[in-house]
Amino acid sequence: MSTLSPEVQVAIARVRDDVAALHAELVRYGLVVWTGGNISGRVPGADLFVIKPSGVGYHDLDPSSLILCTLDGDVVPDTPGSDRSPSSDTAAHAYVYRNMPEVGGVVHTHSTYATAWAARAEAIPCVITAMADEFGGEIPVGPFAIIGDDSIGRGIVETLAGHRSRAVLMRNHGPFTIGRDARDAVKAAVMLEDVARTVHIARQGGALVPIAPEAIDALFERYQNVYGQQPAAGAQ
Amino acid sequence: MSTLSPEVQVAIARVRDDVAALHAELVRYGLVVWTGGNISGRVPGADLFVIKPSGVGYHDLDPSSLILCTLDGDVVPDTPGSDRSPSSDTAAHAYVYRNMPEVGGVVHTHSTYATAWAARAEAIPCVITAMADEFGGEIPVGPFAIIGDDSIGRGIVETLAGHRSRAVLMRNHGPFTIGRDARDAVKAAVMLEDVARTVHIARQGGALVPIAPEAIDALFERYQNVYGQQPAAGAQ
Amino acid sequence: MSTLSPEVQVAIARVRDDVAALHAELVRYGLVVWTGGNISGRVPGADLFVIKPSGVGYHDLDPSSLILCTLDGDVVPDTPGSDRSPSSDTAAHAYVYRNMPEVGGVVHTHSTYATAWAARAEAIPCVITAMADEFGGEIPVGPFAIIGDDSIGRGIVETLAGHRSRAVLMRNHGPFTIGRDARDAVKAAVMLEDVARTVHIARQGGALVPIAPEAIDALFERYQNVYGQQPAAGAQ
Amino acid sequence: MSTLSPEVQVAIARVRDDVAALHAELVRYGLVVWTGGNISGRVPGADLFVIKPSGVGYHDLDPSSLILCTLDGDVVPDTPGSDRSPSSDTAAHAYVYRNMPEVGGVVHTHSTYATAWAARAEAIPCVITAMADEFGGEIPVGPFAIIGDDSIGRGIVETLAGHRSRAVLMRNHGPFTIGRDARDAVKAAVMLEDVARTVHIARQGGALVPIAPEAIDALFERYQNVYGQQPAAGAQ
Repeated sequence: MSTLSPEVQVAIARVRDDVAALHAELVRYGLVVWTGGNISGRVPGADLFVIKPSGVGYHDLDPSSLILCTLDGDVVPDTPGSDRSPSSDTAAHAYVYRNMPEVGGVVHTHSTYATAWAARAEAIPCVITAMADEFGGEIPVGPFAIIGDDSIGRGIVETLAGHRSRAVLMRNHGPFTIGRDARDAVKAAVMLEDVARTVHIARQGGALVPIAPEAIDALFERYQNVYGQQPAAGAQ
Repeated sequence: MSTLSPEVQVAIARVRDDVAALHAELVRYGLVVWTGGNISGRVPGADLFVIKPSGVGYHDLDPSSLILCTLDGDVVPDTPGSDRSPSSDTAAHAYVYRNMPEVGGVVHTHSTYATAWAARAEAIPCVITAMADEFGGEIPVGPFAIIGDDSIGRGIVETLAGHRSRAVLMRNHGPFTIGRDARDAVKAAVMLEDVARTVHIARQGGALVPIAPEAIDALFERYQNVYGQQPAAGAQ
Repeated sequence: MSTLSPEVQVAIARVRDDVAALHAELVRYGLVVWTGGNISGRVPGADLFVIKPSGVGYHDLDPSSLILCTLDGDVVPDTPGSDRSPSSDTAAHAYVYRNMPEVGGVVHTHSTYATAWAARAEAIPCVITAMADEFGGEIPVGPFAIIGDDSIGRGIVETLAGHRSRAVLMRNHGPFTIGRDARDAVKAAVMLEDVARTVHIARQGGALVPIAPEAIDALFERYQNVYGQQPAAGAQ
Repeated sequence: MSTLSPEVQVAIARVRDDVAALHAELVRYGLVVWTGGNISGRVPGADLFVIKPSGVGYHDLDPSSLILCTLDGDVVPDTPGSDRSPSSDTAAHAYVYRNMPEVGGVVHTHSTYATAWAARAEAIPCVITAMADEFGGEIPVGPFAIIGDDSIGRGIVETLAGHRSRAVLMRNHGPFTIGRDARDAVKAAVMLEDVARTVHIARQGGALVPIAPEAIDALFERYQNVYGQQPAAGAQ
């Protein structure tokens, strides 16, 4: 830890707090069971990220139980949590951070409806405006990949690089989402499961009505630039 | 605020309290995720309404965080919350209040089952008595409309004006509900999702049995006039 | 109240407590939304029962808000809650108590899956042992009946008299359950929704495997006589 | 109790604590309703196990309410809880403990999706990696068996002996899961319902994509040996 500047140490502490608190959102929205799923957050200004320990329950997570890793996926020794194993998906998170510098957070779950689409290797079509807003089109499918090495990371990056969607359905496995920070990636995981469920149920009842591509473009553009609280925003 | 009478200021405070508390009902009934969805309430005796700020979480809503708007959808300056952007659906709410003077509350969600019917542009048939009671018949579908201008408001008013239903399924988008006040519109949103789910599940299992139109009329008439607590009601 | 013996007054107080507490079970198991659904309990040793007021929310129910009625469905004047209207299903409950002396509790909900079967007027086949245990066979469908007079009560009694099932699916309406007391009727409502959901989902996936009728008989017989805590029961 | 060594008495107390606490997990994950379902745990170093009493609600369970039994399924007299009847599935649990010495915990539920597969007597195909991790392949179906004697226990043992899966779907009844201790068996029950639900929903939407058998083997091998916290584990 002696090689880390005070600024970086403050940044690490903030990411630990955020990532620990965000795990509760996965529980609240029913996206995870038992110890499954994980969130990581990149430390701004350093080649580091913070991630959940492997096989630990959501009730036992606090900032100091999270594990600090380098962008190669190695645990930084002599830091809080470094006596434990990080998430078995750590290599995948690390690969994403190394290859997508704009990404500040990564989330993985086996949420029910998103995983169901993944078990059919079927992209989710964009038929509701909330999905156009958030993802700008369909949710793509990534390749089948074995857990534990770079395969999953490569599949995520190959699928999402240059894609509007912040979510990918890894075939026969489940969703990974990315974001500008950990909160943004968690939001993507929550919204993904919501649209995966709604579109599944819609299609069970009959034929879906498509949204015109230019309407999808307009919705995505507007939501990315106008929705929410901006420094000098007026009424929308 | 200096132009508002004391009576109107009291009315505004009451609507702020009601609308803030009602947002918790959307969470309780699982009708919203993250920051999606919004409730507004008209201020009795004034051309004003109170609405949720844009992109703000449900845990961060209190009466003073809500935003006071004119019936043109403009934020009233120098009032609590006026430094923030109102819901991106504010124009739609304002259009409804301008054109449906009997409406005192408007609710918008992307609740799962109602949105699934909307993604098929399919009205929900009235096959359960609770739906006849509450909505007097089928739940109609409104047009596809881009978010942010009067389009959604016009679609809501065109569909619901003169219709028994207090709910409309905006195509590829989700439900809007209206009511005599914000609580009544929230009740409609809750009951809508309940019937949307039940009728979806019923039809997945086979052919639905219709209810005779005259029975629907009798149920609607009775529920609107007899159910609940009246000033001088006897046993029903 | 002056005509009620002290023993009956004690019994009324106990039923008020039980019925008030049991309403929370309907909420816990997700069987009701908003103010829908109701529970009543017969007062042992008197021609009286206690029932939920009409259109009142589940958070506002306490023992003194419940309403005491005669077996004709009339509110007993000058008793706690007697200034309010009882449930709009009071006539149905009263009819059951008058015509089925062994019944000590009645529950009505619009629980999702049970109501879905009712919207198809389809009995739930007995394909899981928990259903054989609890209901002794299929859950039958009752007739379509208008709300507010004896029609629903007659439909319940005609369907359940002499039937093993303590639950009936009133066509296009929803379930009513009966029991030896209010708790037993609530248990039936909870178990009914559980089996309605499980059997619906099972059939969505393909053909159901039947249970032999003699196995259903054996399961029902055993559960009614051996399950749970008996005064002098040994290990089962 | 005088014949039990102090070591065994300490072990019994620990199993009572664990099994009482684990029942809350069944409620948290929605695997049980009312008094259904049960957990038992073997007492290490003794021919004894601890099990839920029959027909008792989940809110009324504490360590001393659980019942100590021999491996023949007989209640040990003059121990806490011995005045009550143990679970009606006690004979099944005892049979498993007698015949599978590696098993330290047994769980039974009627969880919705697992029971739905059981009502069709259909094994759950292994199409998601989480299922390969946890169960090493498909979830098998056990025979139809009457409740109350050795039939269920025999069906469990015949189906699971030599099988990778720690879960069996007893035909027309529901799942039983086993584990090295009670916590491990509860984890299996939670994960089983999760995969039963996900695979059901996946197949409702169209054809499932299989996972290659050698990939299933690799996933199972890795998860059993590398996932979670090991005494001297490094980053995975």
